[in-house]
Amino acid sequence: MYIGIDLGGTNIAGAVVNAEGNILSQGSVPTRSERPTIDIVKDMAELSREITADSGLELSDIKAVGIGCPGTIDFDTGEVIYSNNIRMEHFPLADEFRKLIDLPVKVDNDANCAAMGEYLVNGGGAKSFMLITLGTGVGSGLVLNGEVYRGFNGAASEAGHLTLVSGGELCTCGKQGCWEAYASASALVRQTKTAMSAHPESLMHKIAEEFGAVNGQTAFLAAKEGDAAAHAVVDAYIRYVADGIVSVENIIQPEVIAIGGGISREGEGLLRPIREYVGNTGFNKFKKKSRIIAAGLLNDAGVIGAAAVAM
Amino acid sequence: MYIGIDLGGTNIAGAVVNAEGNILSQGSVPTRSERPTIDIVKDMAELSREITADSGLELSDIKAVGIGCPGTIDFDTGEVIYSNNIRMEHFPLADEFRKLIDLPVKVDNDANCAAMGEYLVNGGGAKSFMLITLGTGVGSGLVLNGEVYRGFNGAASEAGHLTLVSGGELCTCGKQGCWEAYASASALVRQTKTAMSAHPESLMHKIAEEFGAVNGQTAFLAAKEGDAAAHAVVDAYIRYVADGIVSVENIIQPEVIAIGGGISREGEGLLRPIREYVGNTGFNKFKKKSRIIAAGLLNDAGVIGAAAVAM
Repeated sequence: MYIGIDLGGTNIAGAVVNAEGNILSQGSVPTRSERPTIDIVKDMAELSREITADSGLELSDIKAVGIGCPGTIDFDTGEVIYSNNIRMEHFPLADEFRKLIDLPVKVDNDANCAAMGEYLVNGGGAKSFMLITLGTGVGSGLVLNGEVYRGFNGAASEAGHLTLVSGGELCTCGKQGCWEAYASASALVRQTKTAMSAHPESLMHKIAEEFGAVNGQTAFLAAKEGDAAAHAVVDAYIRYVADGIVSVENIIQPEVIAIGGGISREGEGLLRPIREYVGNTGFNKFKKKSRIIAAGLLNDAGVIGAAAVAM
Repeated sequence: MYIGIDLGGTNIAGAVVNAEGNILSQGSVPTRSERPTIDIVKDMAELSREITADSGLELSDIKAVGIGCPGTIDFDTGEVIYSNNIRMEHFPLADEFRKLIDLPVKVDNDANCAAMGEYLVNGGGAKSFMLITLGTGVGSGLVLNGEVYRGFNGAASEAGHLTLVSGGELCTCGKQGCWEAYASASALVRQTKTAMSAHPESLMHKIAEEFGAVNGQTAFLAAKEGDAAAHAVVDAYIRYVADGIVSVENIIQPEVIAIGGGISREGEGLLRPIREYVGNTGFNKFKKKSRIIAAGLLNDAGVIGAAAVAM
């Protein structure tokens, strides 16, 4: 048995996973990323103990722990070189975790983990596979010939920080115009709020009230009801997502592109226009097209993939 | 001996190249891309005969011909699936050439050829190497573990058509906001002309007159003389180039990025600000940096690489 932990900007998710990639038990706690990092590590260890007990096992039954973490990771040492969603610089995550639970620990970029998990379950053996996750940020993981592609410095496939609008909106990373600043769920919430301010008549206000807050679904739900302002938000957002995928295509041409994260629950309402846009842009018209699919594992890809990295 | 032909938007360059990658003779003729494609092929064959004679050889001494061509190529069949700089759709380039000169012919994307040539001569055995060519368009070729990376459909590494400004300037490919529409030599000429219209006092007018036309050097030369309008053009252009390199970095993290094409003759004046920008953007600060160098072969990379592809 293995433990996979997905350390996200919002939640820490953990699961006990068997060698076939099936989840035996799982749980999550809020990250509260503004805390001292060491407290986050304590919660990760605590969560590991809880889910192990939930699955009727003991820690001695666990062979290894895999941790998926946003940012740049030194895969060999388990050090987080830099993470901007959870503030870490040169933080020895594997070592600190091991002080609390003495098991072999592997740390990898969260999006690499998710890509590996998704590839194993839904990749169909594609020669090149990319998972793009639209969440708090935009993450991506690239699997070439069945292996995570890390680049010479371990920092490859950070598609969230490719340039979508040169000189555009400021990203949390400090650069202007990153894809993440336009295509993340957080960006969609911001775009939705801006449209709501401009359109007091929009149905989005009522929907946001029903859900208690504006979220990534607000505009999609209102657009389905025919709300014009919401339609404009959704159309612009999909264009931002699709224009970033065009960049990925023009560099990598992955055989399969899987789109994950909360927004991907929109399914075909999101995927169909993306496929059309990406497939019809001038330079892509004449080539065999990448298969663009919704990620099947949704949030579980992170924990399953983290466990897979530890196997 | 091998013949390498680089079919560019402006010129057809050809060279007789030995197995070590040395050029024995070379020549070029204008492409005049608006002509029927078959006339361009005739000129390619004619040029091949000429340079073979120039090197004191006969066609029977040539083992194979390699052709580098812009666009999407079926490497196995030698068909040009789609090229937008030289108008071709499903054009059997290898077959048509072979009707004129009966030798084995290999066709590859021009930027793939150039990347392979540059990698062999200046790559220093890097695990990942990318050549970015700032010419009529923006081309790129990616060499991973010593082999051209083509993607599952042979269309990978068309970095010129990654999105630089979502919803921005119209590219020749029909899509809006491609890197090529901002960072190619043609784009720089356009940007220079726009600035010249707005600044009749600028030194750029005098320099353009001396050279007989506005070209990719005009703004760089005037900027070196302290011309403010030219400085603004150069700064904006370098930012466009660098912002696209940021995208490449965040997806691939190549160990070496070589910048080629006429603009790369600017050398450190171009490279230093690019290195600074790419190295200092938030998300890249903490990682081992790619080596960003000027391509050493300049225009010869195309013909040497095309010959290498045929070897």
